[in-house]
Amino acid sequence: MKIVVLTKGLKQKHIDLINETAKEAGAHVCYAESEKQFPEGFEEPDIIYGFGIETARSSKNLKWLCVPSAGVDYLMHPDAFGNEECILTNSAGAYGVSIAEHIIAVTLMMMRRLTEFHAETLQKTWGSPKPQKSLKDCRITVLGTGDIGCSFARRAKAFEPESLTGICRSGVCNESSFDRILKIGELDSVLPQTDLLVMSLPATAETENILSRGRIEMLPEGAYVVNVGRGSAIDEDALADALDSGKLGGAALDVFRTEPLPESSRLWNTPNLLITPHVAGNLTLAHTMDRNVEMFCEDLISFANGLPMKHVVNRKLGY
Amino acid sequence: MKIVVLTKGLKQKHIDLINETAKEAGAHVCYAESEKQFPEGFEEPDIIYGFGIETARSSKNLKWLCVPSAGVDYLMHPDAFGNEECILTNSAGAYGVSIAEHIIAVTLMMMRRLTEFHAETLQKTWGSPKPQKSLKDCRITVLGTGDIGCSFARRAKAFEPESLTGICRSGVCNESSFDRILKIGELDSVLPQTDLLVMSLPATAETENILSRGRIEMLPEGAYVVNVGRGSAIDEDALADALDSGKLGGAALDVFRTEPLPESSRLWNTPNLLITPHVAGNLTLAHTMDRNVEMFCEDLISFANGLPMKHVVNRKLGY
Repeated sequence: MKIVVLTKGLKQKHIDLINETAKEAGAHVCYAESEKQFPEGFEEPDIIYGFGIETARSSKNLKWLCVPSAGVDYLMHPDAFGNEECILTNSAGAYGVSIAEHIIAVTLMMMRRLTEFHAETLQKTWGSPKPQKSLKDCRITVLGTGDIGCSFARRAKAFEPESLTGICRSGVCNESSFDRILKIGELDSVLPQTDLLVMSLPATAETENILSRGRIEMLPEGAYVVNVGRGSAIDEDALADALDSGKLGGAALDVFRTEPLPESSRLWNTPNLLITPHVAGNLTLAHTMDRNVEMFCEDLISFANGLPMKHVVNRKLGY
Repeated sequence: MKIVVLTKGLKQKHIDLINETAKEAGAHVCYAESEKQFPEGFEEPDIIYGFGIETARSSKNLKWLCVPSAGVDYLMHPDAFGNEECILTNSAGAYGVSIAEHIIAVTLMMMRRLTEFHAETLQKTWGSPKPQKSLKDCRITVLGTGDIGCSFARRAKAFEPESLTGICRSGVCNESSFDRILKIGELDSVLPQTDLLVMSLPATAETENILSRGRIEMLPEGAYVVNVGRGSAIDEDALADALDSGKLGGAALDVFRTEPLPESSRLWNTPNLLITPHVAGNLTLAHTMDRNVEMFCEDLISFANGLPMKHVVNRKLGY
């Protein structure tokens, strides 16, 4: 059994863990910079841990692709796998901590107008108080209650919000920090009572444009929107209109329909919009990388022993 | 019994509550813009709610001064009260929510390098990942375990820090979010194990320069410092040196030895220093103003009935 590891940014401790686990699993492992440079003897790997997208498409032999990302939308087209039986696992579960911290950070930056204070500071200007909002007594709706949504909810709960509503496809989620879990069909009834809408959804047919122009209009005056899932979930033009008009208090987007965001995008100039370049969950955070590697190794033992793997993607649902 | 209210920014609901409570207490109440313009008949008030600093100094009649701030250092000199028996209450307890949110926000902004991403965004530049830190597994020390320190601890706990240590004069604090509470004498032993030092101390003789040059040196490489108490607690020059040299990961100061911070201050140009103009706890947050007024009204009923008041300052300790 041959494994090629393409994941970038591994530290020695990660390599040690992968090597030990491969040994336990009876597998040979090598590390490659890119798909164009597989080492000798590893040209036809059984397993790839990393973005082995081209190999997945062309190889009839690949049995398992583990990608270090949470989202797998880029692998959801019919030609993605040369071997129809190839197992796909993702790394959802590694990003919750980092992305939850990102959501809390950008929300408070907007509510407390910290970028405005910071801009004044850069001018050596001692600013004056500005109207502020708070997570306390805030009505929070979390669209998508996977690892990210739940990790956020556990943190947000400590800020004493008025309500914390989770919304997901099934209407079922065991995270006790939520006051209630609703099915996605009930979204429209919740939006008018939402001061902060957090979106942590995968890109699927069901989530495409889910925050449409009509739904943005349902939000109350001064509401905030944070998107850390996929850009396809939002009507970006309608969101920009709602920020331009002052209807929304602010929005923070880490993901966009086109990434990198084109220089011509109107979003660069939209007021009260906090843009980050898809970094809410990057692997530069030690904890995220640790979890990512641990999750692969956990599944590697299961794979070798023919046991159920924990992080398998449901390719029908797309996550 | 005559009350003059000097507190700014009251909404009608606050005025209604004060008026109702004054009626219940058998008191007459008026509202004034400044100490120079007390309305007719209220020239010698029994009670002032607001910054009645001059009146407190000159009046032999003032029986109770309630200031809307948490810190009262500016009233700790021997000539502060013309009437030695005048009761002083403060509004510690109103600011915990706002200042705790500020601490979380600026800490995550530093750890996640959000001001750098924001600066790139202003240039329409799609930035690339940067090394990040996390509150998860962070060793947090909170210096000062009053309302602010405890409100922060409750929120910080949800981020799964490795440890959460409270330090105060008495070594006693009932907030269960802390893993342990130590006396201030044990500070030196804790600093080398502190990744994030949060300072929420009143300005007293005991806290003057408590974060000295020597103690800054005890912090580990890459540690973060957040001060929301009073500027007198820090050797600002030593802190700037530790940021200039890259020893510290970052610092966020909302309070300074001289406020507004003079244009000539080197702090304006110190790297990895997030400056805010003493706004972590301002009254522009609705919750803070609500609590502030509620606390005064609560004590007003007690005062009128000769019962113990909740928010009396111990003028010997200075808080």
